[in-house]
Amino acid sequence: MEISKDQIATLIDHDLSNSAQMLGCFLVSSSSLNPETSPHLKAENLILLGDALFREREFRRAINTYKQALQYYKTIPKQSSTVSRSSLSGRSSSPNSSNISAINENEVKFKIAWCYSALNENKAALVEMDGIPSKARTLPMSLLMAKLYRNSRHNRFAIACYKECLRHCPYVIEAIIALAELGVTAKDIISCFSQILNRSGRAFYDQIDSNRWLQVSIRRSS
Amino acid sequence: MEISKDQIATLIDHDLSNSAQMLGCFLVSSSSLNPETSPHLKAENLILLGDALFREREFRRAINTYKQALQYYKTIPKQSSTVSRSSLSGRSSSPNSSNISAINENEVKFKIAWCYSALNENKAALVEMDGIPSKARTLPMSLLMAKLYRNSRHNRFAIACYKECLRHCPYVIEAIIALAELGVTAKDIISCFSQILNRSGRAFYDQIDSNRWLQVSIRRSS
Repeated sequence: MEISKDQIATLIDHDLSNSAQMLGCFLVSSSSLNPETSPHLKAENLILLGDALFREREFRRAINTYKQALQYYKTIPKQSSTVSRSSLSGRSSSPNSSNISAINENEVKFKIAWCYSALNENKAALVEMDGIPSKARTLPMSLLMAKLYRNSRHNRFAIACYKECLRHCPYVIEAIIALAELGVTAKDIISCFSQILNRSGRAFYDQIDSNRWLQVSIRRSS
Repeated sequence: MEISKDQIATLIDHDLSNSAQMLGCFLVSSSSLNPETSPHLKAENLILLGDALFREREFRRAINTYKQALQYYKTIPKQSSTVSRSSLSGRSSSPNSSNISAINENEVKFKIAWCYSALNENKAALVEMDGIPSKARTLPMSLLMAKLYRNSRHNRFAIACYKECLRHCPYVIEAIIALAELGVTAKDIISCFSQILNRSGRAFYDQIDSNRWLQVSIRRSS
């Protein structure tokens, strides 16, 4: 009666999320009935099922599944959960990327927030995002927060988050346009890049310098 | 004025497809104006833009962009295009996976078909899929063809394609259910697995044997 996580992850990676979802239901049912299954594995299985449901745009079911995963995660002894978290720090935190080997609590919260956002439940999405420490925020997380704040007309917070996006990566044109629309000056927007510039030195400067089109487009947007 | 494909691919991988799309438009415009840009690079840029548009669910624009890419691809001398094609044979052919390093003509046709299918234009999607040699079909391609044939009530072709999916991977539950619904017997469905079994020998047999749940679920579906 063995169904492996890898098989489900492979189906998700091939965009066969319908089959992944059905197989994920089998996996979650069998692991929840098995007293030998660790809470860590139960949480991992639930996250995979959540990812399949997300791909199928079954956002409500995905939220419930991710939340169950977080409940199991909370029962894992602290030491092992810390190891898992740090081991995933460099991974993409998009709900479209399946999480196979370890659990990143912040990433799961982000996936829940993304689902709420897809359901136009801004407040619930922001509550979920507030649970992620600001230092742990990735670029997609900052962008989602910016959009949520903007939708809620919290423009000051939205501006801060959009600027954070540009500090991660100057190519997030969406953030540049939003900042211009929110009344931020071109000079102020460009200063976000110069902060990266000061941190990363000449190599990055050369890249920015050759990307004058970016600065021109900022001035045009504002 | 340098925008690199990698920057766009990174944005797509982070699900920042809105920004990827805008940056992709810049990239395509600048490369189409530059007489030094090779047709191969132009095609690659267009595919990246197509992927960003697909993610944004702008299917009509994605179709036009992918078709332009194929036009450039046709102008590439045969030898280099053959190398590109074979170098990508093992890659996932989902439109959700961005294609950075080389061009796979069949994959682009599949992406176009996927867009038509999302627009409920079954016939156009099937025409596109018919351009892919049957030997080059990947699992997601066979599944899309099966669905398209089923929607068009070409049940005999649909059954053949669903069976093809199971020959790729026995875990495509969606295909099992569809075959059962189309009146295929449990014995006939299971025989698809035994074909893989004969090809791959004992190791795969052990896996199948431990997955009796799969055979039980097939019998229940039919």
